[in-house]
Amino acid sequence: MEIREVFARNLRRTRHAKGLSQEALAHEADVDRTYISSLERGVYAATIDMVGKLAEVLGVEPDALLRRASKPSRGKS
Amino acid sequence: MEIREVFARNLRRTRHAKGLSQEALAHEADVDRTYISSLERGVYAATIDMVGKLAEVLGVEPDALLRRASKPSRGKS
Repeated sequence: MEIREVFARNLRRTRHAKGLSQEALAHEADVDRTYISSLERGVYAATIDMVGKLAEVLGVEPDALLRRASKPSRGKS
Repeated sequence: MEIREVFARNLRRTRHAKGLSQEALAHEADVDRTYISSLERGVYAATIDMVGKLAEVLGVEPDALLRRASKPSRGKS
């Protein structure tokens, strides 16, 4: 899986886990909601500064947002 | 520690561990040597695409390059 897709999925998953809307996350991170939406679709490559900022708002470590899901040993890529 | 500094240190450490010069890494990643040098000094915020590319060349997972060193307390997290 490409890194943008990994980040997109982790961002969305973590945001949901925190019960935040795209709008709420955008507000907290001081960016536009459409930018969050774009990141969650892999349209742009975020900078590491942005990864750090979003991680801070979401209360996770930055590297967690770039972590590939561990392979489910039974098939499925 | 700021995320750029975390990345800078990890990049340099991993590059050294692989025995690569900045020039060799730059060549493999198809970027300029001065860009690698700048990243290792935290001058620019790399995009996640660049993190992914450098990780690939270095043979590590992208998230490893953004991972904070564990705190030097006695109990290793």
